[in-house]
Amino acid sequence: MKAFSDRLAEAVRRTKAPVVVGLDPRLEGLPTAIAPKEKFPAAVALAFERFCQGVIDAVARHVPAVKPQAAFFEQLGPPGMQALANLIAYAQKQGLLVILDGKRNDIGSTAAAYADGWLGPGGVSPWGADALTVNPYLGEDAIQPFIETAKARGAGLFVLVKTSNPGSRQFQDLVADGVPLYQHVGRWVQQLAGRTLGQCGYGLVGAVVGATYPAQLTELRSLMPQVWFLVPGYGAQGGTARDVAGAFDPQGLGAIVVSARAILFAHQQSPYREQFGSSRWQEAVEAAACDMIAQLRAETPASRLPPS
Amino acid sequence: MKAFSDRLAEAVRRTKAPVVVGLDPRLEGLPTAIAPKEKFPAAVALAFERFCQGVIDAVARHVPAVKPQAAFFEQLGPPGMQALANLIAYAQKQGLLVILDGKRNDIGSTAAAYADGWLGPGGVSPWGADALTVNPYLGEDAIQPFIETAKARGAGLFVLVKTSNPGSRQFQDLVADGVPLYQHVGRWVQQLAGRTLGQCGYGLVGAVVGATYPAQLTELRSLMPQVWFLVPGYGAQGGTARDVAGAFDPQGLGAIVVSARAILFAHQQSPYREQFGSSRWQEAVEAAACDMIAQLRAETPASRLPPS
Repeated sequence: MKAFSDRLAEAVRRTKAPVVVGLDPRLEGLPTAIAPKEKFPAAVALAFERFCQGVIDAVARHVPAVKPQAAFFEQLGPPGMQALANLIAYAQKQGLLVILDGKRNDIGSTAAAYADGWLGPGGVSPWGADALTVNPYLGEDAIQPFIETAKARGAGLFVLVKTSNPGSRQFQDLVADGVPLYQHVGRWVQQLAGRTLGQCGYGLVGAVVGATYPAQLTELRSLMPQVWFLVPGYGAQGGTARDVAGAFDPQGLGAIVVSARAILFAHQQSPYREQFGSSRWQEAVEAAACDMIAQLRAETPASRLPPS
Repeated sequence: MKAFSDRLAEAVRRTKAPVVVGLDPRLEGLPTAIAPKEKFPAAVALAFERFCQGVIDAVARHVPAVKPQAAFFEQLGPPGMQALANLIAYAQKQGLLVILDGKRNDIGSTAAAYADGWLGPGGVSPWGADALTVNPYLGEDAIQPFIETAKARGAGLFVLVKTSNPGSRQFQDLVADGVPLYQHVGRWVQQLAGRTLGQCGYGLVGAVVGATYPAQLTELRSLMPQVWFLVPGYGAQGGTARDVAGAFDPQGLGAIVVSARAILFAHQQSPYREQFGSSRWQEAVEAAACDMIAQLRAETPASRLPPS
């Protein structure tokens, strides 16, 4: 089984697009044709599944990966979880890597159970995601079981280092031994990545670093040279292509930038609303994804990815 | 809807037992009569559900609450999640409070989706838990949506402060401004609890503090006088009744102590194995729970709870 870091590098090189489409379905964002008539969980779950399948169909040729947000499926109870399982399998069938955004974390055998459940390949794991986001607060013995399972199954991890929200300052920026907490976490993630390198020069343990903190992105890039960055906070949260430029290595690898709302619900937003409207929502999704790709190619080292 | 902190205080006073039974089912711990013949997820999920129902039946008269561990159900994919939903409803029907151990966390509207999904009452929420464990790494704006939903629905939260594992030292003990990180988190949790007080004098925001760090338990008790403590690490992880004594207030309230393996799998452990064996596993569960209650009554301020 090929290492996740190498599968991600190949997919980014192939698409020349360091973009991850966040699958964060919301009832109020669904196009008219898909919105459920009834609001009970099973009906909403089915609508979420159809919507996300449509998004996957629209972007699969253009991007390397999608990132389902577990919360929006868990919110619907068991029918939502079934929709999530169906979507993970559907996205992989369309050639996409799936990064499950669950921010899971626990200790010892409990962490092992999360890893066993979520990290693919499908058939071996009931959910079968290619990678999972995890939280570092519990420390090394809580991450180790995730790493062991990921290594055995060719899967990856993204550890929260510096998150994109305003409140990330509260604890992540506390200074201990002259260094903010997020750098303590970042240095440790670099060690973990250095021990699990793929042929691309990156390890299986990646980091979540927000687009809304461009100075920290650049600082962490040099502190963590072998760590894939998953960069949320682009678009709706305020991060721009220029803000994320520092997340990449000089060859245009090393970072994948997430956008959810701005792509998923493009049909509700200018200029796509005027151009496509609700009925042609899949074209709006595709156009918004392609515009984001073009912005990243114009403003970041992603321009240096090899021509396809 | 009565406040969660008051419902918990009432249940602890009624049972005179500050004990939470952790529902962490494991295949290798199942009694012979319940172990599934086939190992596919739906069969294992059904066995987990039957096993946990049996545990609930055995302890419902004795303890105030159970704590299902989400990981062991997620590990089985969608059938596991259905079993989890069934168990939450079953436990509540037997009069138990349900603290879902999911250690969830995310920002803004995503945190709101987790809160909406998990925090009861059932019927309003598809999962319907009475309380949820949450992780503080993302800061205040990630916890606020959980608090708002919990307040509106009479539910509770337990924020990870000082976890029971050895690795909790790595980041939680880093000293910033002369104070370890876990105390920064603890002081903030105390503020949140102070703003959401029930009639019992405790707030809806509780804290997870490990039995394996008795000095920190006592220190945090005085730092966080209005915060319910959920105390893992008892028994199998090494914490004793004497270790957790400092978690209680002088009236015997303020802390609930978790045990999972030592109760669930008592039929595999001395002295219960010899006394009951696999066939009478429910009696072993009940005896182990009652022994733990007796230890806590003997060694902690729980002895001062009012007679029933």
